[in-house]
Amino acid sequence: MAGKAAAGQDAIDRRFMAAALRLSRRNAGRTATNPSVGTVIVRDDGAGPFIVGTGVTAVGGRPHAETEALAEAVELARGATAYVTLEPCAHHGRTPPCANALVNAGVARVVGAASDPDPRVSGKGYAILRAAGVEVTEGVLAREAAEQMVGYMSRSLRKRPEVILKLALSVDGKIGRRGAGQVSITGESARREVHLMRAEADAILVGIGTVLEDDPALTVRLPGLESRSPIRVVLDRHARLPEASKLVAGIDRVPVYVAACEHADPQRKAALERLGVRFIGTETVDSRVALPELMEDLAALGMASVLVEGGAEVAKAFLADDLVDRIVLFRGAVEVGEGGIAAPLDEDHIPTGFRRVRDMRFGDDLYGEWIRGM
Amino acid sequence: MAGKAAAGQDAIDRRFMAAALRLSRRNAGRTATNPSVGTVIVRDDGAGPFIVGTGVTAVGGRPHAETEALAEAVELARGATAYVTLEPCAHHGRTPPCANALVNAGVARVVGAASDPDPRVSGKGYAILRAAGVEVTEGVLAREAAEQMVGYMSRSLRKRPEVILKLALSVDGKIGRRGAGQVSITGESARREVHLMRAEADAILVGIGTVLEDDPALTVRLPGLESRSPIRVVLDRHARLPEASKLVAGIDRVPVYVAACEHADPQRKAALERLGVRFIGTETVDSRVALPELMEDLAALGMASVLVEGGAEVAKAFLADDLVDRIVLFRGAVEVGEGGIAAPLDEDHIPTGFRRVRDMRFGDDLYGEWIRGM
Repeated sequence: MAGKAAAGQDAIDRRFMAAALRLSRRNAGRTATNPSVGTVIVRDDGAGPFIVGTGVTAVGGRPHAETEALAEAVELARGATAYVTLEPCAHHGRTPPCANALVNAGVARVVGAASDPDPRVSGKGYAILRAAGVEVTEGVLAREAAEQMVGYMSRSLRKRPEVILKLALSVDGKIGRRGAGQVSITGESARREVHLMRAEADAILVGIGTVLEDDPALTVRLPGLESRSPIRVVLDRHARLPEASKLVAGIDRVPVYVAACEHADPQRKAALERLGVRFIGTETVDSRVALPELMEDLAALGMASVLVEGGAEVAKAFLADDLVDRIVLFRGAVEVGEGGIAAPLDEDHIPTGFRRVRDMRFGDDLYGEWIRGM
Repeated sequence: MAGKAAAGQDAIDRRFMAAALRLSRRNAGRTATNPSVGTVIVRDDGAGPFIVGTGVTAVGGRPHAETEALAEAVELARGATAYVTLEPCAHHGRTPPCANALVNAGVARVVGAASDPDPRVSGKGYAILRAAGVEVTEGVLAREAAEQMVGYMSRSLRKRPEVILKLALSVDGKIGRRGAGQVSITGESARREVHLMRAEADAILVGIGTVLEDDPALTVRLPGLESRSPIRVVLDRHARLPEASKLVAGIDRVPVYVAACEHADPQRKAALERLGVRFIGTETVDSRVALPELMEDLAALGMASVLVEGGAEVAKAFLADDLVDRIVLFRGAVEVGEGGIAAPLDEDHIPTGFRRVRDMRFGDDLYGEWIRGM
């Protein structure tokens, strides 16, 4: 009987944690250096559980989700259960740590998904709760939570952002045509999905070749999401970024970082700096930007996820340095034909260590997603 | 005799480390999330020591100082002594760690000043050197080096930037006059010193009151240093920053971050975002921005030093939260008189725990500097 009750509670816990995880996605990519966390506060006064407060990390990173949910629940939090997608924070600033806020509100039980990788916090939030007599259940939907917060986890543990490699392949396995500018390989529906991916990333990265060839804006152009464009990063050792490029034209709204080596023409650098371009110093190995070092520097600048959008050489370099955490392939119905640029990989040539996690269809285009075992 | 020789070597070590420290200042504030380090490589072929290579962390943060100095010394590094102001890095990317680079170049001895506070590195760089048979002397001018790298140390160890509080007091102890806009309390020479301080900081922070009152640009306006303006941060809970302010006008060249609470008018925020302002979400405690949390977020964004420039209320809030690491007071010869704003502190009312480290004179203006024991 106890087993059956526990199984029932288990199902309830998973249901409300799933709700908290859905909620946490709302501000993904908009919470600066804080992870986007969801909190759901649930009461059961005998007639079944019901939600009395919900919260998600605020745009800009603060307040935290727990603060929001407790503010909504007010006195109904007393004796309730709080579902949190990440262990509540434990370190003191001017505001009490979320763990203490839950205690002070009289929450009786806390159910957590992921543990915090930050050594200042890991385990300490749960310890505060237990010491105050709050019942704690850890690890509910932990894998799903970790998958959603992989950028935050990566930045915290590995000191580098999560790297997502996105490629769009034509039906004949090309990613574009040299000298043809931007070639539409996928349809409108897939394009919208890419813009959603951009909105959830902290940075988009391309090589200077892609900029010179396509002159992309690399912004989010979906109604209502225009303000969610991530920082644009260009691998551009010699500072060849054209002053008249769309990247520079949009710099007052979305920052542009150029990874250049110190020997780049100082006059070109100065001219670009005057236009607002910010430079990141890089080292050169085999005539390429040293990517692991650059990823470390992007993490130090607060970036937890980087979407690598092109071109083929850049994709190969990230794969060669074993820096890719997630691969997203769009397979369009368009044929590029003669003069096309061969894709650096396809569905049948995914590097070892990756597992396929998702298949979708956007109009005529296929979508496949692979994650590296961490 | 051995003692005398050792004493002689000690004096030589201090002399060349002092040179490395002077060198490291060259790029202070320009090395992004990397500390500005200096390296001097010295040979002694029997006729006394002479420098064969010098290096400083490149603008933008990479390459590191050791790489530069070794590139200059080339084969003369073999058997030489390298003076490094910070323990050489030990973690692998695409380029070899600096500790290995020194070994590969055949350096016979490494003299270090500060140890690295980063737990990924601390002690490991010296260990690589010793394991390869390189003689290592640690801690030469360690205090001077730590003082120069206090921002990097603070960001690494305390997860917050070094905070420098700067105030200019009139002869009658005022910092300005309400409703009078910017009042010149100090002369041209002191003004230039303030601009140099700005050039070495990662961020300048002011309250919205100062912006509304004075409309400052908060940039570096010294010939040749115009491109070294730090990020401007405004404490502005309600997003009142005027679109026509000088801060916004200069945003294409120098970023502006606004620390605002999530309840600030969304239309005002959207309008400022369109102009390029970036928001940092903050919590409010007693109608003020929660400063410890904000400092943590600025550190996560890569900022290692913040120069707090005004006004009186902001200065008091930083002092009340025990967040100030360094106090710089300018005492001008000007009298403000009636209607003046009283200074939040003066030379005779420095908080306990600070020690006076420097006195200077700039024209008619006095300069005092205090550092908190760390």
